[in-house]
Amino acid sequence: MTDPQTQRYKFTIEYKGTDYAGWQRQEAGGPPTIQGAIEDAIYSFSQQRLTVQSAGRTDAGVHARCQIAHADFKPLSRAMEPYEITKAINAHLLLQPISILDTELADEEFHARFSAKNKLYVYKILNRWSFPALEKGMHWHIKRPLDIAAMQEAANYLIGKHDFTTFRDSECQAKTPVRTLDRLQVTAREYDSRGGKEVLIEAEAKSFLHHMVRNLAGTLTMVGEGKWQPKDVQAALQAKDRNAGGPTAPAGGLYLHRIDYE
Amino acid sequence: MTDPQTQRYKFTIEYKGTDYAGWQRQEAGGPPTIQGAIEDAIYSFSQQRLTVQSAGRTDAGVHARCQIAHADFKPLSRAMEPYEITKAINAHLLLQPISILDTELADEEFHARFSAKNKLYVYKILNRWSFPALEKGMHWHIKRPLDIAAMQEAANYLIGKHDFTTFRDSECQAKTPVRTLDRLQVTAREYDSRGGKEVLIEAEAKSFLHHMVRNLAGTLTMVGEGKWQPKDVQAALQAKDRNAGGPTAPAGGLYLHRIDYE
Repeated sequence: MTDPQTQRYKFTIEYKGTDYAGWQRQEAGGPPTIQGAIEDAIYSFSQQRLTVQSAGRTDAGVHARCQIAHADFKPLSRAMEPYEITKAINAHLLLQPISILDTELADEEFHARFSAKNKLYVYKILNRWSFPALEKGMHWHIKRPLDIAAMQEAANYLIGKHDFTTFRDSECQAKTPVRTLDRLQVTAREYDSRGGKEVLIEAEAKSFLHHMVRNLAGTLTMVGEGKWQPKDVQAALQAKDRNAGGPTAPAGGLYLHRIDYE
Repeated sequence: MTDPQTQRYKFTIEYKGTDYAGWQRQEAGGPPTIQGAIEDAIYSFSQQRLTVQSAGRTDAGVHARCQIAHADFKPLSRAMEPYEITKAINAHLLLQPISILDTELADEEFHARFSAKNKLYVYKILNRWSFPALEKGMHWHIKRPLDIAAMQEAANYLIGKHDFTTFRDSECQAKTPVRTLDRLQVTAREYDSRGGKEVLIEAEAKSFLHHMVRNLAGTLTMVGEGKWQPKDVQAALQAKDRNAGGPTAPAGGLYLHRIDYE
């Protein structure tokens, strides 16, 4: 039950995950985390040691264009507008690649994780021969030209309600491996004037299994490189065995892009 | 005159300028430069101490999606295909945000700077209240919402052949302040789900004066913020006086985007 003395706030957060051990706070003395940095920033301005609960605990190295989180504040020493709270937290995050984009008042029924109706992850591949310079660490770099049409054909076998055991990390703690993938779209756009392409894999669902998007991306890339046929992905799905799937794509290409609430 | 024993190569180069003192090599012991890094990489694989001549000497902090340069190689100890030269140089740049995208054989008449027919610079502004996290150092961050239509109206006064003394750095060494600006376009696109915008100023010309694009961007931003009227930019141009122009926009927002040759 929520303490009637507290006020819940909803935060929209952007971060570059490269140098963090993921969202989830670790024990004192552990590596830096996004949650830890934000909770420390809240403490610095309010002297309140709060838990900031996110919609999803992104892994080490994963980025967010729009993570959503909430926290319950006890009465502050002076009344503050939501934008003043954004400003106060950001003032303590200035040297870190984490930025609060928005703070809103939220009802006590609002829960960043359980109220989420839909999530969009985007997986980015830099598909060219030369390594990345301008955006180091922001893509999976693949040299061999990917066959986008074949990747989309493979993706089509995965859309819908399935047992996604093949794409689920062995450490995943979800009660069921069944998920409904509403969208899995593969597109490419020009990245540089020398034929370099940026390939985007967009995955949309109410919720995902642990490493699911990275495992999907790693498997679709096997098809894009011509090592697998699109039909092989259907067989992998039906095997319901992680060993039947492709590799886990690196964390640096993954972005939590959008979360929708009612 | 070109030594008949040498072979000229044309390079396409991407770099993030943030931590460099610009393109131009400095004296030994000076700060790191892009030209210095590439010349050192060439020396490391070929033992040739060459001068790499670029189309434009970008300032400290300025980025390039596509810088063009050339260099004259003496015969190599073994014959190498152009792609092998790309690979050999990049192998020595792996830890730096500089990447050779392409190496091509070039005629001795080809000159990266003098053969250029057209250059496109893009100036990027992150227009939102919260500071940048995902792409730190890659934009000019402006909090106040910019009026894009007013900026374009002001830009229209600058397109064409003019004396650009107002937008020319006092240290500019060009013989004449007259340039022909073929395009100056201001557009905005969605950057995040909380109303943040990315504003792009695209400037295209055969050649530019020192700091010209950054001075144009700084002046257009005065209009975007409502401090100046579009007509004020026409008056500033006609004043032919750097003191009549707006401020110089920060280097981190500027990208050398494309260079065209015949």
